[in-house]
Amino acid sequence: MKITVVGAGNVGATCADVLAYKEVANQVVLLDIKEGIAEGKALDIWQKAPIDLYDTRTIGATNDYSKTADSDVVVITSGLPRKPGMSRDDLISTNANIVRSVTENVVKHSPNAIIIVVSNPLDVMTYCAHITSKMPRTKVIGMAGILDTARYRAFLAEEINCSPKDIQAVLMGGHGDTMVPLPRYTTVAGIPVTELVAKDKLDAIVNRTINGGGELVKLMGTSAWYAPGSAAAQMVEAIVKDQRRIFPVCMKLEGEYGIDNCYLGVPVVLGKNGVEKIIELKLNDEEKALLEVSRQKVSEVMQALDTMTAAAK
Amino acid sequence: MKITVVGAGNVGATCADVLAYKEVANQVVLLDIKEGIAEGKALDIWQKAPIDLYDTRTIGATNDYSKTADSDVVVITSGLPRKPGMSRDDLISTNANIVRSVTENVVKHSPNAIIIVVSNPLDVMTYCAHITSKMPRTKVIGMAGILDTARYRAFLAEEINCSPKDIQAVLMGGHGDTMVPLPRYTTVAGIPVTELVAKDKLDAIVNRTINGGGELVKLMGTSAWYAPGSAAAQMVEAIVKDQRRIFPVCMKLEGEYGIDNCYLGVPVVLGKNGVEKIIELKLNDEEKALLEVSRQKVSEVMQALDTMTAAAK
Amino acid sequence: MKITVVGAGNVGATCADVLAYKEVANQVVLLDIKEGIAEGKALDIWQKAPIDLYDTRTIGATNDYSKTADSDVVVITSGLPRKPGMSRDDLISTNANIVRSVTENVVKHSPNAIIIVVSNPLDVMTYCAHITSKMPRTKVIGMAGILDTARYRAFLAEEINCSPKDIQAVLMGGHGDTMVPLPRYTTVAGIPVTELVAKDKLDAIVNRTINGGGELVKLMGTSAWYAPGSAAAQMVEAIVKDQRRIFPVCMKLEGEYGIDNCYLGVPVVLGKNGVEKIIELKLNDEEKALLEVSRQKVSEVMQALDTMTAAAK
Amino acid sequence: MKITVVGAGNVGATCADVLAYKEVANQVVLLDIKEGIAEGKALDIWQKAPIDLYDTRTIGATNDYSKTADSDVVVITSGLPRKPGMSRDDLISTNANIVRSVTENVVKHSPNAIIIVVSNPLDVMTYCAHITSKMPRTKVIGMAGILDTARYRAFLAEEINCSPKDIQAVLMGGHGDTMVPLPRYTTVAGIPVTELVAKDKLDAIVNRTINGGGELVKLMGTSAWYAPGSAAAQMVEAIVKDQRRIFPVCMKLEGEYGIDNCYLGVPVVLGKNGVEKIIELKLNDEEKALLEVSRQKVSEVMQALDTMTAAAK
Repeated sequence: MKITVVGAGNVGATCADVLAYKEVANQVVLLDIKEGIAEGKALDIWQKAPIDLYDTRTIGATNDYSKTADSDVVVITSGLPRKPGMSRDDLISTNANIVRSVTENVVKHSPNAIIIVVSNPLDVMTYCAHITSKMPRTKVIGMAGILDTARYRAFLAEEINCSPKDIQAVLMGGHGDTMVPLPRYTTVAGIPVTELVAKDKLDAIVNRTINGGGELVKLMGTSAWYAPGSAAAQMVEAIVKDQRRIFPVCMKLEGEYGIDNCYLGVPVVLGKNGVEKIIELKLNDEEKALLEVSRQKVSEVMQALDTMTAAAK
Repeated sequence: MKITVVGAGNVGATCADVLAYKEVANQVVLLDIKEGIAEGKALDIWQKAPIDLYDTRTIGATNDYSKTADSDVVVITSGLPRKPGMSRDDLISTNANIVRSVTENVVKHSPNAIIIVVSNPLDVMTYCAHITSKMPRTKVIGMAGILDTARYRAFLAEEINCSPKDIQAVLMGGHGDTMVPLPRYTTVAGIPVTELVAKDKLDAIVNRTINGGGELVKLMGTSAWYAPGSAAAQMVEAIVKDQRRIFPVCMKLEGEYGIDNCYLGVPVVLGKNGVEKIIELKLNDEEKALLEVSRQKVSEVMQALDTMTAAAK
Repeated sequence: MKITVVGAGNVGATCADVLAYKEVANQVVLLDIKEGIAEGKALDIWQKAPIDLYDTRTIGATNDYSKTADSDVVVITSGLPRKPGMSRDDLISTNANIVRSVTENVVKHSPNAIIIVVSNPLDVMTYCAHITSKMPRTKVIGMAGILDTARYRAFLAEEINCSPKDIQAVLMGGHGDTMVPLPRYTTVAGIPVTELVAKDKLDAIVNRTINGGGELVKLMGTSAWYAPGSAAAQMVEAIVKDQRRIFPVCMKLEGEYGIDNCYLGVPVVLGKNGVEKIIELKLNDEEKALLEVSRQKVSEVMQALDTMTAAAK
Repeated sequence: MKITVVGAGNVGATCADVLAYKEVANQVVLLDIKEGIAEGKALDIWQKAPIDLYDTRTIGATNDYSKTADSDVVVITSGLPRKPGMSRDDLISTNANIVRSVTENVVKHSPNAIIIVVSNPLDVMTYCAHITSKMPRTKVIGMAGILDTARYRAFLAEEINCSPKDIQAVLMGGHGDTMVPLPRYTTVAGIPVTELVAKDKLDAIVNRTINGGGELVKLMGTSAWYAPGSAAAQMVEAIVKDQRRIFPVCMKLEGEYGIDNCYLGVPVVLGKNGVEKIIELKLNDEEKALLEVSRQKVSEVMQALDTMTAAAK
């Protein structure tokens, strides 16, 4: 098995490190556009192998996609953070150009790879990678839901004062403030969270989750990477080991949940073919309304990107 | 940390092996009444350490409780299986004598140990160990619920064709045919199982779970040990690492669920003090009725044991 | 990946359990000639998956090799123990018939599988499986050296009072009393063991290792399985993950160490193609003499088997 | 168990992350002088717990040592990197002031903690922390040898094309260019490396190891952290679990190797009391000469620090 992680920033390098540490594949290629950075981080991770006793060989590459040839799974983390004075549309346009270029290179050298998108804004970058790749929608998917649920579960474990191992949750919709929280689908060792946590506290935790990324940026002055990188690695692991894990994953909907042609987070079974099955929850009216709001917001950004792309031609 | 496992049969030896493999403690003592057997298994497990790279030292002992001195947790697996021609009461009487004697020896050498009972019939042997130990009810508890839920979860994973990592469940009541299944408290990555599995299939899985032990005896001609031994080890791990895991555990009820002085499986938070908290589910009438049936059956066996004990004096 | 373990006795079942626990493959088939036993143990191991959180599906089969089809690696543990009144030649003849029949069935359904032999007497059973399989010698190999070195390393860790993780050793030659100990090739975190352990103590440990199997039989009344089963699983893991681990492995020599056409334990690099490379140590005269003794003993048994096989035709 | 890591830079945060991931303790406090950074990283690591399923609670603190109270082990990673135009003496003076202040605060709140120093220049910072702490020399030790040997082992695994799991080595002396390489104490699964790697290649690898830190700085523009952070975590693990691992560790020598009152890397047994035993290798004349060079260089820096400290009073 061979995995490629494009983008050797904090999230990409963390993802490569977790994949190596868990021996998910015996080769992990870390690629970056910036000279030396991927080579350095890959070497540092490889020098950890004799300590933590793994055999995965991590290899760095500066923009040389031939080294990624025949990868089984590719994680795309490339993209710029929003800089001061940059409009949202400028950010989308810039990152779409990056993701488009990366995807073309990836597909050229690994035509059968399953692609996991981590670049932001997540939903629309998944859209961008998918249409660029010309691959089935089950094989070009985005990572956001595992991260959002992980934050939600960590907050709940703290509130309940129990192990984070015992909290399960599904979230849907877009990433960040278009997220659709589903307290009805949150359980503690199988027990509905609503039996254990009062409504006001649960609402506060949902709100904190929606703003989870921002909380960390405020503390650290930069985006988080431990949980995001590990979340992406977990999707890779589920695919490589054909685990059939159930995760919320961003992908194109084609009629599911009554939604067509929009990229949204939905619970799926993740296995060796990518998305093996989309799970359709029996949402109530309130939940459906929230999902519709999320759909509208993501669709708007998709259209904005389409407009910019058309204008650029 | 020091753990003792009393009884070096299949379940006890598996429990010691898992504890060593996971490095839950740096010393595990395996004790048996039969000459050599505990020493042999402990040595075999220790010879595996250079292969699987753990540091836990496993030590065997033939009935010499001084070697168990100052254990932090003790697992009791001792007891005979039911032999042909043996009445249920004979079995209870025999195993109660064994568990009583073991508990006395354990408490004498490790007065502060938390005790986990695995001997069968589970509920009444937990009762027997608890009253013998004179310790708080939160520190003398029985393992059955983790095993029953593990079987139930494995069957569900097979039916849904998803990872067993993504199934959560609570079961209550007695072990085996007095088990109280709770499909309302069974979820798949947070999704109620009833959204994913049809009622008749779920009923069949519940029935298979209730008879889970018997199914294995029929196949192998003897009781299972892989899942039972590992389930007991998981309770030890939750205590040693103060994980605050939520598990169904057999313990004395003192008013919880409206039940007094009966030993039944209930969901608890398990941490460094043993049971840190009993979780009271909001059962509906049907579930309450099933729990009452379970209570009656366990109480009858407790009384039968009391009668036999009184007669023996 | 798919692994088959033939023989659901203690060693085979332990091997299957370790493979599952470590998620070495996503499918492990356990096969036995005795009705129900493999199904029962495989089910018990699968019921442990929700506890220890692995996704490997273990499946049992009674003598139905179609279920083993297209395995990537097959471990053969079948064979009888020596019974009272049974001559050595009777044992060899009986187990050779079993191993021959198993190998034929294995090769028929999994023509590309790498085969690991664990049946005893190990060296000659590896010979038997290899000639039956008509496969390259690098793909039909025997497990004994990892077990012998594991015992040796465990004894040394005890003597030195240090972690077993920090002891490395190579042993060569046949299994058991034809083993060739190599204290010159034994180190503690890279430090020659001879700097840390006095000669008389080292000699005693070597002797204890040579009789390591017997020591356990004497204690338990039956052969060991924890370390043997895990040692076989470690060979599978090295192959499946292409780890290029260096292990002593029993295989046909064709000129290496000046020995031709004999099956002996030698250090090799183990990877996705089975034996990737044989390492030729620079033995001194004393070590060469010990290896020659081992060669003679194994050759004699090989010839005895040839004679019996010819007579049976 | 409670662990504190002082300094939430890359190395410190990586160390905290590895400790959490491995569940080495159930509480890890990450402390930094810079507002928010430790809180942010600790929160990000905690949000990974529901993904990678660990229970360790990571907690961040801005310079508030009361949160570190009663730690069992404290890792000190604080210190500045050398900036352009800064003399070596300026760097030593600056970092010594930082380490002195951190050590005073650590000892005040955790008087029984074992202290592991990672700050650079390593040998003299260990000296500084030790004399400040007024604790036994076995409880205030420096991490450098595990990192240096890890790099050396990674390079050797690459050259030999085998698993890094199978390379063992001891290095001695100071960190970096005062390191004492010991090819005689380097083995591959117990086989002397000199039997497997030609002298010129081995020399090249030794040289690359000595300059291992600089190679990474050149590639990344900053110091490495994956291997350094994990190496520090491994020392914590050996202590917390009383593993009695054998590692090269920087500590004060008091006559060992004929050296008095100098802080150098030597192989030790690391267990619950810190250094349980110093291992004295039987060095040959060449090796002794190299160690003497290392001793001189470290002593010079120690004296330079003494002079600066005296001048400051």
